[in-house]
Amino acid sequence: MNPAIEDIREARSLLGENIHRTPVLESAYFNSTYRGTFRFKCENFQKTGSFKARGALHAVLKLEERKAQKGVVTHSSGNHAAALARAAGIRGIPAYIVMPEDAPEIKKKAVRSYGGIITLCKPGLENRELALQTLHQKTGAVFIPPYNYEDVILGQATAALELLEAFPDTEVLIAPVGGGGLLSGSALSARLLNPEISVYGAEPEQAADARESFQTKELVPVKNPNTVADGLRTSLGPLTFEIILKHVDDILTASETDIIHHMREIWERMKIIVEPSCSVPLACIARHPELFEGKKTGVILTGGNVDLDRLPWV
Amino acid sequence: MNPAIEDIREARSLLGENIHRTPVLESAYFNSTYRGTFRFKCENFQKTGSFKARGALHAVLKLEERKAQKGVVTHSSGNHAAALARAAGIRGIPAYIVMPEDAPEIKKKAVRSYGGIITLCKPGLENRELALQTLHQKTGAVFIPPYNYEDVILGQATAALELLEAFPDTEVLIAPVGGGGLLSGSALSARLLNPEISVYGAEPEQAADARESFQTKELVPVKNPNTVADGLRTSLGPLTFEIILKHVDDILTASETDIIHHMREIWERMKIIVEPSCSVPLACIARHPELFEGKKTGVILTGGNVDLDRLPWV
Repeated sequence: MNPAIEDIREARSLLGENIHRTPVLESAYFNSTYRGTFRFKCENFQKTGSFKARGALHAVLKLEERKAQKGVVTHSSGNHAAALARAAGIRGIPAYIVMPEDAPEIKKKAVRSYGGIITLCKPGLENRELALQTLHQKTGAVFIPPYNYEDVILGQATAALELLEAFPDTEVLIAPVGGGGLLSGSALSARLLNPEISVYGAEPEQAADARESFQTKELVPVKNPNTVADGLRTSLGPLTFEIILKHVDDILTASETDIIHHMREIWERMKIIVEPSCSVPLACIARHPELFEGKKTGVILTGGNVDLDRLPWV
Repeated sequence: MNPAIEDIREARSLLGENIHRTPVLESAYFNSTYRGTFRFKCENFQKTGSFKARGALHAVLKLEERKAQKGVVTHSSGNHAAALARAAGIRGIPAYIVMPEDAPEIKKKAVRSYGGIITLCKPGLENRELALQTLHQKTGAVFIPPYNYEDVILGQATAALELLEAFPDTEVLIAPVGGGGLLSGSALSARLLNPEISVYGAEPEQAADARESFQTKELVPVKNPNTVADGLRTSLGPLTFEIILKHVDDILTASETDIIHHMREIWERMKIIVEPSCSVPLACIARHPELFEGKKTGVILTGGNVDLDRLPWV
């Protein structure tokens, strides 16, 4: 996959008013504590509460009319499910969503509120893939995966595009990495706009498949990810891995304790609600000051969908 | 007290860069749920985490040099304490803050972080006033009360000024009322900019002294306020009462259950952290749809200083 900056700009213009141009926040506290300039791109304020709204909508809008008619299908227990349901609603086509029985009620509610049609399955990746397969054959709907898909990656790239166009003096960009859709898209935007920008991925130590893959240059799937950052438990795909290998400078990691500590720090100091995934970059910044001190860094905050009854520090 | 709009504009320009021009957020969910246009002025993102930073700084900056030299003093267990400590720090004078021994550690920490000098006293208003008196005599510092003070009110008025200047088509303005500094300032800004704007105060049922005072036209102090909205447990002062009587259309009230419900609704839907006081206006909007439906309403969100270990719905 080898897009030009115009492809990402076109993606942004296709998303149009259906996607928020989210605000960028800066905090005197963070700048002085981490001795640099840190600009936080607030995708927690995005439609559906996460950046996933971008990729899903871009993928749905790019489908040929003939293919789109039968709808779209995916499996997800997380933010991609709601994002795809919303995207399909905007195009006026059905969205079939496979979710594990034990998915949180609030996530099911979100999918339904956007008109998504849920098929429940037993937990476990195999069961999910089987249910997806069956549904796909029955309905003829197009499978839109959560990250390993060109038009999803181009959609996710628009968050960094907005940030870097608003702040062309950015020297470093850091984004969390789970399946790699956001990180690969962000890296493409950065490299195409300014090859001098350093790009880092941020990953929980306890789900460090991207780091291992990056270092060994072999795609290694995640094994028993055990992290509070529920958005980052997935493995890279071939497409996202290829882009990350080519355009990312390094993958940094963060401990669970630090992820929770810095999540709370963002809540208390910035007064915004962010998911645990959002604080992984900040935890990496705190651990590797040499990479960020005195520099202008863009940080992508991925989403704000948190179960307020179960906060990780309580 | 009878200021002109120029006095409030001068206050804003005196505050300058030391006070954030806080963002105004709008949410498709709230607009459709409450059937109107609702613009939320986010003082939870203000310096020190609340609108109190405005009034305290304005009062401190307006002191004559001779008086200011000996510093400022106040008693507060809440947001005014940190705001005054910060304001004094900006002017380079000492701030003496009387706080009850049982004030939350995080509030004491905030005051200290801005260089405030804390004197602890036994809990109870009498003990606080006695300690304040002693300190005032010992140091010669000027007493800056939290709300019943002209330059504090003019400072608080600047939040509504910013909101109404940004959205001149506003038809209704609603703000919480505790001591009345914010509500009286907001009402002044509204009336002076456009006498057609309806102005409502929003108060917890269980601390409804402002409503009672407003209806009886006699200043009634609050009795045993028992509300989760910790910023709204105080009574009106003579100065704020006079302005409210003259310029406010009505005081609406909200139940404790509704305050907590709508606080959570703001957290979940807007992904921002707000204090319980902030959801009192929204609870009143939900209870009195006839006053807001189809209208353009400005809502002032007062602050975001919440103890994240003790959320009211957990």
